[in-house]
Amino acid sequence: MIKIGFLGPKGTFTHEALRGYTKSRSEYVECDFGTIADMLVSVNNNEIDEAIVPIENSIEGGSIISNTLDMLAYEVDLKIKAEIVLKVAQNLLVPEGVGLSDIECILSHPQALGQCRKYIDKHFPGIMLKATQSTAGAALEAARSGAKCAVIGSASLADVYGLKVLEHSIQDTDTNETRFIVVSKTDGERTGRDKSSIAFSMEEDKPGSLYRILNIFNLWDINMTRIESRPTRNKLGKYIFFVDLMGHRLDEDLRDALTMVKRKTSFYKFLGSYPMAGSREITQ
Amino acid sequence: MIKIGFLGPKGTFTHEALRGYTKSRSEYVECDFGTIADMLVSVNNNEIDEAIVPIENSIEGGSIISNTLDMLAYEVDLKIKAEIVLKVAQNLLVPEGVGLSDIECILSHPQALGQCRKYIDKHFPGIMLKATQSTAGAALEAARSGAKCAVIGSASLADVYGLKVLEHSIQDTDTNETRFIVVSKTDGERTGRDKSSIAFSMEEDKPGSLYRILNIFNLWDINMTRIESRPTRNKLGKYIFFVDLMGHRLDEDLRDALTMVKRKTSFYKFLGSYPMAGSREITQ
Repeated sequence: MIKIGFLGPKGTFTHEALRGYTKSRSEYVECDFGTIADMLVSVNNNEIDEAIVPIENSIEGGSIISNTLDMLAYEVDLKIKAEIVLKVAQNLLVPEGVGLSDIECILSHPQALGQCRKYIDKHFPGIMLKATQSTAGAALEAARSGAKCAVIGSASLADVYGLKVLEHSIQDTDTNETRFIVVSKTDGERTGRDKSSIAFSMEEDKPGSLYRILNIFNLWDINMTRIESRPTRNKLGKYIFFVDLMGHRLDEDLRDALTMVKRKTSFYKFLGSYPMAGSREITQ
Repeated sequence: MIKIGFLGPKGTFTHEALRGYTKSRSEYVECDFGTIADMLVSVNNNEIDEAIVPIENSIEGGSIISNTLDMLAYEVDLKIKAEIVLKVAQNLLVPEGVGLSDIECILSHPQALGQCRKYIDKHFPGIMLKATQSTAGAALEAARSGAKCAVIGSASLADVYGLKVLEHSIQDTDTNETRFIVVSKTDGERTGRDKSSIAFSMEEDKPGSLYRILNIFNLWDINMTRIESRPTRNKLGKYIFFVDLMGHRLDEDLRDALTMVKRKTSFYKFLGSYPMAGSREITQ
């Protein structure tokens, strides 16, 4: 049995992503964790085999993106083996017996409330909003409290907490994609449609130093799908770069380009090759 | 009186940063907000004058970095007028009468718990950890509950919630810098030691397109202090880049470089020039 960790509680979008990833894999056991750090350390110490973590545009309370990247760069020796992209829709959920006109307050995670701001302003002007630690926390509170409160969150919260979906897809912008990665001790096998992630930094911190690294990708004709700079730990004014590239480490072009990047940087860490995700929609 | 918004409750690190920013300015009125989105819209609608928001390495529950950048790029027409960098230290706080050996549980925001993971494992192995929506929420709960719970958070929480600091600076890494920005309708005046922020995207999404833009900064010898790509809203596979540069929009070099960037991009938005922050330490 493969043990896979996720950031609980059940019913969050991370849990949704996990259900998509492990759908056809009956050998998976889900392990609920309180923090991303604990989960990654558990994989590093072989207590669990894999962990699923949000990496972009996260909407759960405890999941902070920078933390995940920093841990992969500095603290653990894990590889990315898969990515999952979810189109996330927000929904208005209520306890049984509560109708649209009964709603006296709306509970959710602050970012979920933020994503539905225009909807709330239009349909519930001046209503009491209550921020909770997670969308699942909001669902639990609404289900238990007996108050006439609606919850904003994923439709799967309805099943888990005994709520019903009153309105579908109430977020202000059409699509809201969230990216998750699965990390383990080994990365993904070559499929022919892969991505690779690296982290690096340069000794020098002057104009053109990043430009010279990106020139390597330009020369080998490798597309970059993501770049992020972050201050390195303990030193202000020096940066670590997280870059996602098209290709697998076994592809000749990417292998040669990464060899050159390693040579031209003062810190370099390969974070894994993995199949590129299609965007999967949470159907409501 | 200048009205400035911050993400409450009082005692969070955002509130700390605000107190540093407005220290010598008695004309400021602080306005507590529940979400970053509400706060930015309030500035946009002239209901308040300025807002302070975390932008990197945020540790408060409701403050999601991507949300702030996306709103500045797409939804509001505001400029960055200041940045504030805080060295954040985590502390162990307890209600009066509770000593080290009495502590039965530890409350905090999940990322604050994560930042002190090694400390907790060493000094409180197996202790019950409870995640709260914010460090201030943890302090409030500890102060009210009467249970023998410690809180991890800023020292200023002790004043606000009547706790005492048992242990100083318990985070796992030495320095943990958090960056905040102040946004308003106008950006900052030229000081000679300034930064500027821009957002842009390119029509084409192929190898070398970002490289060609960065070449502009290389040619004009302009240093880049931050770069981040994010998927553009509503389209997967196209990216918006957020870049911070050294210099003020009134500096000739930067002005000419930005004119060229605007010409070479399909979307361009100038987000403001502002004095570069020194790192300010929260003394404990």
